[in-house]
Amino acid sequence: MTAPRQFRLTLACPDRLGIAAAVAQCIVDHGGWVQEAHNHAETDDPHFFMRVAIEHASLAPRLDDFQRAFEALAARFAMRWSLADSARPKRIVLMVSKQAHCLYDLLGRMQAGELPGQIVAVISNHPDLRGLVEWHGLPFHHVPVTPDTKPAAFAEVERLHAAYGAELIVLARYMQVLPPALCARQAGRILNIHHSFLPSFVGARPYHQAHARGVKLIGATCHYVTADLDEGPIVEQDVIRIDHADRIEDLVRTGQDVEKAVLARGLRFHLEDRVIVHGHRTVVFR
Amino acid sequence: MTAPRQFRLTLACPDRLGIAAAVAQCIVDHGGWVQEAHNHAETDDPHFFMRVAIEHASLAPRLDDFQRAFEALAARFAMRWSLADSARPKRIVLMVSKQAHCLYDLLGRMQAGELPGQIVAVISNHPDLRGLVEWHGLPFHHVPVTPDTKPAAFAEVERLHAAYGAELIVLARYMQVLPPALCARQAGRILNIHHSFLPSFVGARPYHQAHARGVKLIGATCHYVTADLDEGPIVEQDVIRIDHADRIEDLVRTGQDVEKAVLARGLRFHLEDRVIVHGHRTVVFR
Amino acid sequence: MTAPRQFRLTLACPDRLGIAAAVAQCIVDHGGWVQEAHNHAETDDPHFFMRVAIEHASLAPRLDDFQRAFEALAARFAMRWSLADSARPKRIVLMVSKQAHCLYDLLGRMQAGELPGQIVAVISNHPDLRGLVEWHGLPFHHVPVTPDTKPAAFAEVERLHAAYGAELIVLARYMQVLPPALCARQAGRILNIHHSFLPSFVGARPYHQAHARGVKLIGATCHYVTADLDEGPIVEQDVIRIDHADRIEDLVRTGQDVEKAVLARGLRFHLEDRVIVHGHRTVVFR
Amino acid sequence: MTAPRQFRLTLACPDRLGIAAAVAQCIVDHGGWVQEAHNHAETDDPHFFMRVAIEHASLAPRLDDFQRAFEALAARFAMRWSLADSARPKRIVLMVSKQAHCLYDLLGRMQAGELPGQIVAVISNHPDLRGLVEWHGLPFHHVPVTPDTKPAAFAEVERLHAAYGAELIVLARYMQVLPPALCARQAGRILNIHHSFLPSFVGARPYHQAHARGVKLIGATCHYVTADLDEGPIVEQDVIRIDHADRIEDLVRTGQDVEKAVLARGLRFHLEDRVIVHGHRTVVFR
Repeated sequence: MTAPRQFRLTLACPDRLGIAAAVAQCIVDHGGWVQEAHNHAETDDPHFFMRVAIEHASLAPRLDDFQRAFEALAARFAMRWSLADSARPKRIVLMVSKQAHCLYDLLGRMQAGELPGQIVAVISNHPDLRGLVEWHGLPFHHVPVTPDTKPAAFAEVERLHAAYGAELIVLARYMQVLPPALCARQAGRILNIHHSFLPSFVGARPYHQAHARGVKLIGATCHYVTADLDEGPIVEQDVIRIDHADRIEDLVRTGQDVEKAVLARGLRFHLEDRVIVHGHRTVVFR
Repeated sequence: MTAPRQFRLTLACPDRLGIAAAVAQCIVDHGGWVQEAHNHAETDDPHFFMRVAIEHASLAPRLDDFQRAFEALAARFAMRWSLADSARPKRIVLMVSKQAHCLYDLLGRMQAGELPGQIVAVISNHPDLRGLVEWHGLPFHHVPVTPDTKPAAFAEVERLHAAYGAELIVLARYMQVLPPALCARQAGRILNIHHSFLPSFVGARPYHQAHARGVKLIGATCHYVTADLDEGPIVEQDVIRIDHADRIEDLVRTGQDVEKAVLARGLRFHLEDRVIVHGHRTVVFR
Repeated sequence: MTAPRQFRLTLACPDRLGIAAAVAQCIVDHGGWVQEAHNHAETDDPHFFMRVAIEHASLAPRLDDFQRAFEALAARFAMRWSLADSARPKRIVLMVSKQAHCLYDLLGRMQAGELPGQIVAVISNHPDLRGLVEWHGLPFHHVPVTPDTKPAAFAEVERLHAAYGAELIVLARYMQVLPPALCARQAGRILNIHHSFLPSFVGARPYHQAHARGVKLIGATCHYVTADLDEGPIVEQDVIRIDHADRIEDLVRTGQDVEKAVLARGLRFHLEDRVIVHGHRTVVFR
Repeated sequence: MTAPRQFRLTLACPDRLGIAAAVAQCIVDHGGWVQEAHNHAETDDPHFFMRVAIEHASLAPRLDDFQRAFEALAARFAMRWSLADSARPKRIVLMVSKQAHCLYDLLGRMQAGELPGQIVAVISNHPDLRGLVEWHGLPFHHVPVTPDTKPAAFAEVERLHAAYGAELIVLARYMQVLPPALCARQAGRILNIHHSFLPSFVGARPYHQAHARGVKLIGATCHYVTADLDEGPIVEQDVIRIDHADRIEDLVRTGQDVEKAVLARGLRFHLEDRVIVHGHRTVVFR
């Protein structure tokens, strides 16, 4: 029971007449069989977004021709675009600290063969999770971070990232702030899970803040990392009900269930090429 | 703050290469500006489904040409299709009995100008809700139904339906079973709200059944009516949490909140041409 | 199918040994039959909270004795407490402006006999909703509010509140800020519905803020009104999923469904004596 | 950040006057400090249910006296009752087959120290998950089940259960039907996770059934196992939204997220002594 192999074409461009038709025609001209497609147009600041899933076997024979033709079309419409092959999973570097709930969740999905991406390495600022990671056959890199070593540590992170040919960094409850320059270089390619329903409770200890405020729901937010902490484009969010009897440690525990679920969904959207960043916001073709 | 005027093209046909491109090209050939589009392909029994929202002003000048051209295209691909103008709301006959929660909800939406359809009349087998309906400026028809008068009563319902030029019947907690012949004649044009999460608790007194079974969630289902009671294609469902302290009358009350929300959403999907029936199932382009 | 008549005893006091036992014994000593009870103890700042539902018929014959005995017990434990009779619904003044979705929802519940309180009057700063209110047999008072007339207007509101013997003010999307003195005098007796998931998007135009931030869920908050706008103790909250295709007007419409549901639930909790305010937070015995 | 140590007293008995008071008085007479308490009375078939959380240190010095006194009280009211110490976690035997999502989830909670019970062994009818289980330091027993060996296999299961002194069996997607005699001997002490929102889609392949019926939500149910398959008392349920584009394998994957969440919650309720079975239904003091 595996998903059918597909090409996933995603694009964004200023809106004008005929984009969808030109794209669809270019696909069919090269034999491509469309299985799923979504368009969206923003009207305030007119932009057009599209995701097309094309049966792999139909387009593969003339793929080079298609890419050349599409290149020209993309230039004409000033598109940002990408074409991904579902059988070539994106390479992921996971970053963790001590909390393991998101790591367990993602390793479980990996073992079940359901993660539509490939974890190539795990980096942590603590050694605690080495055993679990290595049992799963993955390399584990302990890169401690202290105020003094921070620049060197993140240079090492970027070296590892490059060495593994990674295309995505996932901060799975990684408790260090990334340097702005790294965020900028990897814009749209670093996913974080924040343990609050943003923009509520930005910053440290959101569950303590939530308890103090007496909210009746707590949540989690999966977002792309930018230099502005907790301000990056949001990919996915969810919440869960709590009540007055929940102490802060209950919020932490309950919230972890939302965190891992939201990260798994947001990550899936990214890996399946369902997310297009548009300024401060995201288009997510679910 | 009203939604922009659109044409909504929906279609279903056996799947084959090039449908999306042909449709998109036909739209752009007649000046149509696509604002939102979704395709879906079923692979088991290969069928293709599409919904396109086209800016009204872009297509309106050459609408007749477009329709002629599309007629030919539709014939070529053996499509079922429709083209709806968002500024011409569908005409709805509401049918109710004594319970008013769905009626209140829909009248409130009508008054707020948010219902993307036009209620043209309300028919009831009880006189109780006449005052509320007439206060809202709508005609109210009391058509009692007894075992003896049932054929005559539903003949009158169909006469009223025709007289009002209605395109949709909404059973907003109408407590009579419609004759199979009427269901067949209006297939895909009668929406019902059932007070359970189907297929759980079919038939009578679902909240009593739910209480007896000790479920922890109760739900509601909006579906098209077919001759097989509670078996029609499902458009929308939702649930709400209950607990052991809820008596049957609490389930009834709590459930009504789900019923009205689910009916309102399902009805909106239908009125915005988001639903395509495919055998026993529905495609809903949300 | 009506709920059984009950006395509802609620209390809060500094925590110490034996409160629950003393309360339970006092009830049984006077023949009271407990149907539902909840205790909760806060451990940081040790406080004890309790709600007991007592069958009416069992306690009614010796009610005066019970109240005298409980008065002494309450003094001993320094309790805030109340004893309410479910057959004597609390008297409610509704305040509205132009938006009617919450009003429709509450009037529908009133007509269905499911509101566990009695709406005694509706006050609005606009005349628009007079017809709907008066059709339901309720008095409607148009009290315009301008910067100049604000003190006089709210003096009139308080005069009406007193004249109707109201015990609760419900701001059902009332778009004026209440004077701090009124908030203080009616602390814990004014419920508001705010159209965001607080503490996100405080202040004006939360749906515009939500759209700009690109959140994936929007929500609503029912809270007691205090002089600090949007900072009062939260009674109930909920959220609903949105996506990139939702324009601001879609958020407004979708959000209204959450607003009316959250207000109805929060109001029910209050009317059924399920809420105890404790500083900035609430205990809600659901 | 651990929960405070508590005694948890739970009881069920025919309802009559004075139960709550007698229980509370017995607790306070022995120094017990009540932190959280819930009563519930069923009125149709009058039964009384109660859960009290008592601070451990307050009751521990006179525990034996308390138990003797409570024994007498329980006899007087014909109570089923239990007294559990939160610091003595219940001993759990997990049973699994090949699917690991629930196992990963529970092992992750165990590692995080958040599981309020102790997994003492894992039994499986397949050898696949041995490595993962043993890496976590738990014994793994492969007990194959074929039609011929079924009686012997389940005799071995019961032998292991006894040898480990287990108090609960958790079927974490164990794909064999337990013998009725085992179900009867362990009534109320075997939890199962069923991969549908019962009573929808009983029996085999519920996701296939859900897909065929075209439902818009799928769910999972945690219930006690009885000899009537899928008919045991329900402890917890939840659902998740799907749509027309989800193939059966998408339902399986999406559903697994609900299964593990629902099992974890239902298991927690059991381990924290929050569940009282009452005939076909459960009282769950959340």
